[in-house]
Amino acid sequence: MLINCAVYQDGTKLADLSPDRPEELQGYLQQPNTFVWVALRDADAAELEPYRRLFHLHELAVEDASRGQQRPKVEEYGSDLFASMHLVDWVGGDLSLGEVAVFVGANYVLSVRRGSKLHFLGVRERCEREPELLVHGPSFVLYALMDAVVDRYFPIVDRLELELDEIEQSIFVRGAQLDNIKRLYELKRRLMLLHRAVAPMLEMLSKLHGGRIPPICARTGDYFRDVADHLARIEGAIDSLRDTLGTAIQANLSMVAIEDSNVTKRLAAWAGIFAAATAFAGIWGMNFEHMPELKLSWAYPAALGLIVSVCGFLWWRFRRAGWL
Amino acid sequence: MLINCAVYQDGTKLADLSPDRPEELQGYLQQPNTFVWVALRDADAAELEPYRRLFHLHELAVEDASRGQQRPKVEEYGSDLFASMHLVDWVGGDLSLGEVAVFVGANYVLSVRRGSKLHFLGVRERCEREPELLVHGPSFVLYALMDAVVDRYFPIVDRLELELDEIEQSIFVRGAQLDNIKRLYELKRRLMLLHRAVAPMLEMLSKLHGGRIPPICARTGDYFRDVADHLARIEGAIDSLRDTLGTAIQANLSMVAIEDSNVTKRLAAWAGIFAAATAFAGIWGMNFEHMPELKLSWAYPAALGLIVSVCGFLWWRFRRAGWL
Amino acid sequence: MLINCAVYQDGTKLADLSPDRPEELQGYLQQPNTFVWVALRDADAAELEPYRRLFHLHELAVEDASRGQQRPKVEEYGSDLFASMHLVDWVGGDLSLGEVAVFVGANYVLSVRRGSKLHFLGVRERCEREPELLVHGPSFVLYALMDAVVDRYFPIVDRLELELDEIEQSIFVRGAQLDNIKRLYELKRRLMLLHRAVAPMLEMLSKLHGGRIPPICARTGDYFRDVADHLARIEGAIDSLRDTLGTAIQANLSMVAIEDSNVTKRLAAWAGIFAAATAFAGIWGMNFEHMPELKLSWAYPAALGLIVSVCGFLWWRFRRAGWL
Amino acid sequence: MLINCAVYQDGTKLADLSPDRPEELQGYLQQPNTFVWVALRDADAAELEPYRRLFHLHELAVEDASRGQQRPKVEEYGSDLFASMHLVDWVGGDLSLGEVAVFVGANYVLSVRRGSKLHFLGVRERCEREPELLVHGPSFVLYALMDAVVDRYFPIVDRLELELDEIEQSIFVRGAQLDNIKRLYELKRRLMLLHRAVAPMLEMLSKLHGGRIPPICARTGDYFRDVADHLARIEGAIDSLRDTLGTAIQANLSMVAIEDSNVTKRLAAWAGIFAAATAFAGIWGMNFEHMPELKLSWAYPAALGLIVSVCGFLWWRFRRAGWL
Amino acid sequence: MLINCAVYQDGTKLADLSPDRPEELQGYLQQPNTFVWVALRDADAAELEPYRRLFHLHELAVEDASRGQQRPKVEEYGSDLFASMHLVDWVGGDLSLGEVAVFVGANYVLSVRRGSKLHFLGVRERCEREPELLVHGPSFVLYALMDAVVDRYFPIVDRLELELDEIEQSIFVRGAQLDNIKRLYELKRRLMLLHRAVAPMLEMLSKLHGGRIPPICARTGDYFRDVADHLARIEGAIDSLRDTLGTAIQANLSMVAIEDSNVTKRLAAWAGIFAAATAFAGIWGMNFEHMPELKLSWAYPAALGLIVSVCGFLWWRFRRAGWL
Repeated sequence: MLINCAVYQDGTKLADLSPDRPEELQGYLQQPNTFVWVALRDADAAELEPYRRLFHLHELAVEDASRGQQRPKVEEYGSDLFASMHLVDWVGGDLSLGEVAVFVGANYVLSVRRGSKLHFLGVRERCEREPELLVHGPSFVLYALMDAVVDRYFPIVDRLELELDEIEQSIFVRGAQLDNIKRLYELKRRLMLLHRAVAPMLEMLSKLHGGRIPPICARTGDYFRDVADHLARIEGAIDSLRDTLGTAIQANLSMVAIEDSNVTKRLAAWAGIFAAATAFAGIWGMNFEHMPELKLSWAYPAALGLIVSVCGFLWWRFRRAGWL
Repeated sequence: MLINCAVYQDGTKLADLSPDRPEELQGYLQQPNTFVWVALRDADAAELEPYRRLFHLHELAVEDASRGQQRPKVEEYGSDLFASMHLVDWVGGDLSLGEVAVFVGANYVLSVRRGSKLHFLGVRERCEREPELLVHGPSFVLYALMDAVVDRYFPIVDRLELELDEIEQSIFVRGAQLDNIKRLYELKRRLMLLHRAVAPMLEMLSKLHGGRIPPICARTGDYFRDVADHLARIEGAIDSLRDTLGTAIQANLSMVAIEDSNVTKRLAAWAGIFAAATAFAGIWGMNFEHMPELKLSWAYPAALGLIVSVCGFLWWRFRRAGWL
Repeated sequence: MLINCAVYQDGTKLADLSPDRPEELQGYLQQPNTFVWVALRDADAAELEPYRRLFHLHELAVEDASRGQQRPKVEEYGSDLFASMHLVDWVGGDLSLGEVAVFVGANYVLSVRRGSKLHFLGVRERCEREPELLVHGPSFVLYALMDAVVDRYFPIVDRLELELDEIEQSIFVRGAQLDNIKRLYELKRRLMLLHRAVAPMLEMLSKLHGGRIPPICARTGDYFRDVADHLARIEGAIDSLRDTLGTAIQANLSMVAIEDSNVTKRLAAWAGIFAAATAFAGIWGMNFEHMPELKLSWAYPAALGLIVSVCGFLWWRFRRAGWL
Repeated sequence: MLINCAVYQDGTKLADLSPDRPEELQGYLQQPNTFVWVALRDADAAELEPYRRLFHLHELAVEDASRGQQRPKVEEYGSDLFASMHLVDWVGGDLSLGEVAVFVGANYVLSVRRGSKLHFLGVRERCEREPELLVHGPSFVLYALMDAVVDRYFPIVDRLELELDEIEQSIFVRGAQLDNIKRLYELKRRLMLLHRAVAPMLEMLSKLHGGRIPPICARTGDYFRDVADHLARIEGAIDSLRDTLGTAIQANLSMVAIEDSNVTKRLAAWAGIFAAATAFAGIWGMNFEHMPELKLSWAYPAALGLIVSVCGFLWWRFRRAGWL
Repeated sequence: MLINCAVYQDGTKLADLSPDRPEELQGYLQQPNTFVWVALRDADAAELEPYRRLFHLHELAVEDASRGQQRPKVEEYGSDLFASMHLVDWVGGDLSLGEVAVFVGANYVLSVRRGSKLHFLGVRERCEREPELLVHGPSFVLYALMDAVVDRYFPIVDRLELELDEIEQSIFVRGAQLDNIKRLYELKRRLMLLHRAVAPMLEMLSKLHGGRIPPICARTGDYFRDVADHLARIEGAIDSLRDTLGTAIQANLSMVAIEDSNVTKRLAAWAGIFAAATAFAGIWGMNFEHMPELKLSWAYPAALGLIVSVCGFLWWRFRRAGWL
């Protein structure tokens, strides 16, 4: 589905175009310092076909874009670029994964968004407000899109860090261990999803600045480096979260073991106290005929007193030993 | 065992050949833009011998292909290539490992499949339907075979991910821990098998695109990069699965410990309640002569009431403390 | 907020300047072997604006410096450098994170500190006392600032090592496990915070010595290598701490399990002893009419003796087995 | 101790030599396309001395070869090579470590075996049977020795994999956990020993093919690559074994915990059932005078019935809950 | 504190010098093929000052050498080298850490030892006995010192391996787990200390052989490679120890769990046996009037027999199940 399609010259928008008149687009493509920027959504191979012919896109790239489920990557086909990125978004309390594929050539940018509600209208508006930057051409648009994608990772990392903070609050709270391990596991799953979006993108960005870079990005290397830097910060946060999360899981297991040990101690203590009482009672409940103490009038209270004393003594000792 | 053998010129099939007439093959091998594509199955050294002489294959490569049990790899012997890949397939509910070895030269492709029911007839058909691609020659056939091998890894990864999803459903379910740990262990074993097929292949593909590539692959580098990319996605999924699986094993252990702790608490609680009842009963079962309360007519119901009250109080306290 | 602003020629301070008179600064900037050193605190984009125009700072760098929350990094913008570092400080018993951003050009140094009470007045004083070093120009100031930042990491590592030492003292002490796991977790959190300050900085320093270095640092490479070396020592200490901490967490879990096991043994032992006593008492408490031993006058003391003997024997056996 | 010593020209054996006549060896060393191949066993510095002088061996290499306990490595001394490898063998049910050091020059090969019963007579025989390969000279002998060393690693890996398979059979078997953990630990120890033989050798082989290789190996690079490949397969298997073994240890711990938890449940269940019976019996064993139910003739069977019913009900409930 | 100071020409000692007459040293420094070798101990900045001026040492290197607490490293200052190494020694049953810093120039070697009783007199003696090697100049002295430092790591690794062997002896011994975990933790701590000495030194040695090496080491590259090789063997042993130690800690935890599980089983078994006895006794201790079996003369022995039979049966079943 077409979102919009416009032509830009020297950083300024010339006109909104209709893709139904390809000869018009064709005309603009031949003008100097001019490029066409097309945005599509959930386009299949058929919908991409006219653009493939117009922009001479490589079949492998078109196949990747129309099928989706790509790994974040950037690939050079001749002098053109094909980039694919993950869009990560909160939908109904969980992370949802979408994609955006971008074709970049000397005189065109074609973006195809798939499976996500996140849109890039703001990117286009901001670009149009800064013609002195947009004059860098299609590779600047690629930068702007990447920057927007990466900017949307930050609140997600923040929320995951917040979740970990919340779990940490209750990690040493008695009885919260079952809940904690569930939440830690869920957090781990989300972290992995984000990591799989970020790590390959970091790798792909290293091809766009420093060292040998595609000629099309020659003037925008500083911008890609800046995105790479933001992404490295996110990846650093993810690494740190994973490491802390691993320790949290271990700490949680330790807490379960400590609590179990405390219960065992308490069980041992009470079992000992009652067993002592029961043993005494059992002895005086024996039916021997010659048990002289049974005849004494003060024996019963004395026996009760003895039992209470012994139990009390045990209780006090266990208490001091920290078992109760 | 010969599967088929044909000769192609400028991307189009000229004829099916019989390897019994080597002079005919020899004749085709000298024609320009022509190559022979031979497919064998479970061939031993003797069966490979005529091809070794015809295509001047390197003895080390032939040895590797006839013995099987190779690590995925690609090797240059002069201007020719030898590639070996793992075929992974579900057989009877478990993963089964086969191999395919491919010899590629300027004018021939020889594939030897071993120990797997997966075949490549579809690859040949697709290639023959697209002469404009097959014109790239033997290295395109190598690409097509690799692409087919890699495409067959995807459903396996998907099924492993599905298995993990299923285990995750029951990871926090009481009493499922024994089953879960068995399934997690089995999943790990399968993941390792797939990982050992994928990781060396990814390494081998890096020799076929970017940087210095064999001259024979000069025109098909983009295709090999695309396969490498698909493979990188699989490897990413495997990494993610391994990481999540490790966490799942830890979570499972935590769950066992939490359940054990709960049982210990419950045991402690009931042991306490019954011990209290038994201690009271024991005391009034003692045989002292002077136990005035035994004479009272309302003492027995009162005693029962006391015992029930004490036990009830304990039950309520343990309940409130979350032990019952 | 401006902290101070001065101009230096051939390593000696010429004058303190007021940024309110930019034409004066402009004049100094054109003199040879002269540079301006400006220090700001918690400056926003508006406050940085005049310097941006004066020193022709890159907009991306200014954006990073005014927003804060940067990853430690060093970036080249043309012949100028932009560096960002983390300031780590103890505030109220916990680690607190600040930042300092430094812009370095041929004839200026601009540092912006953010969110930390740590200041760099000592750096300026020391630089002014050593004109033979300050003559190296702005890149020497960058070195001096980095050196000061890194020097402040050392006491933090020392304190973390001290904390681990303290925990180690009680790691095999009975009953300290709950406290230990809490402290180990907290220590881990702090280590991660420091690690996230140190690791990217080490990476960034590798760009300032050895290999291809920015021309502006040509004469100060040895100094940056020295800072890198100090940082590598800190990173080595952090790695070692993380590794030891991981082992400490495992040892702690082992200790909990060992203690639990000891309690279980003790519980088992006492339960056995009392159960034996109760069983004997129960038998002689049965109401059979023909129990000849009940009639004997010495039976009761003998029974008591037997019970005590059996219990004593069990006690002695359990003691020998190390259960009590 | 000398094993054998022969001279080869153009791939064919000329004569067996006696090292007692060094002038003869000296004579052969000056002939073109000729090399001397000496095999020693457990030689000390004194025994190596004549060869050191004859072949101009580097003192550091001789020291390494005569002392043994070297790490697998390959070193260039001028145009000569010194290689050291581990020999791993099963002796009396355990892995035993030996070494072989090989000196290779343009016209000589000297191998020194140490601390192992594994010999290389088969290597010499095979080389002599294939003069068309032996014509490659000393570096081919080095290849043949390496290939023989690596070929002997395969059955060891196979046996370790078999051991793990056997352990896996009993990993989820009740009561086998103690035995399993012992065997897993032993397996780990063996894996580490093999890993320490294989990993450095893989590293050393990377110096003998691809990239810049010693001139002496110029014509045998393909052969060394083949050995490297076999070794990479072994290392892959070791990695996989280590990873699976780690998971097996975790699974074993989980099994212990699950079994412990099951026993605790059973203990809790039976303790509950008996405690109920004992409590009822205790109540009717009390000595109150007014316990009307004691007088009824059908009370005793009714009481027994009640006790059995309660116990039966508990048993059924626990059974249903999976505790029994 | 000066240990000794001598001048060497063409590998032979010319004279012992007194540092009090710097003009004499100065004279020797100008002669060809001559170098001065000074050894200091625990020298502070003041003591190093005359040498700094004499040898034109770089201030950063002098600062590092006089402060100590350096990370092992080697740094080039112009054509001179500064190396710092850790000395590891057993003092009073624990590992103690010292340092040695070495300044190397074309015509001088200056070593500063700090905080360790390990001395290098043997190194000087051996060097003086081998003038054919000492003629390589100061870089050979650096090699000899490094070799001596590394040689002293070997017995430490051996002792740590011995310690692990001893722990392994008792890892599956009942009741030794508390002791084992303490010793494993201590061993880990020592391993980390050694690792921090070895790993950076390995990295530093890679700068002294192969690739681009400092001109001063041009003729001694083979020697440094030999040291690097020894060090790689030590690092390999440390890695192997760490890995095995990690497994040992896990095995120890498993052992604790298995032992705990065994005790729980035994507890469960005995609790069951006694509970059965007590329940029977309790039933026949009830005070119902109509319990016909109480009147029978053979009832008591029969009851005792029944109780013993039931208990015996339970004992036999638990025994067979491996619980007792």
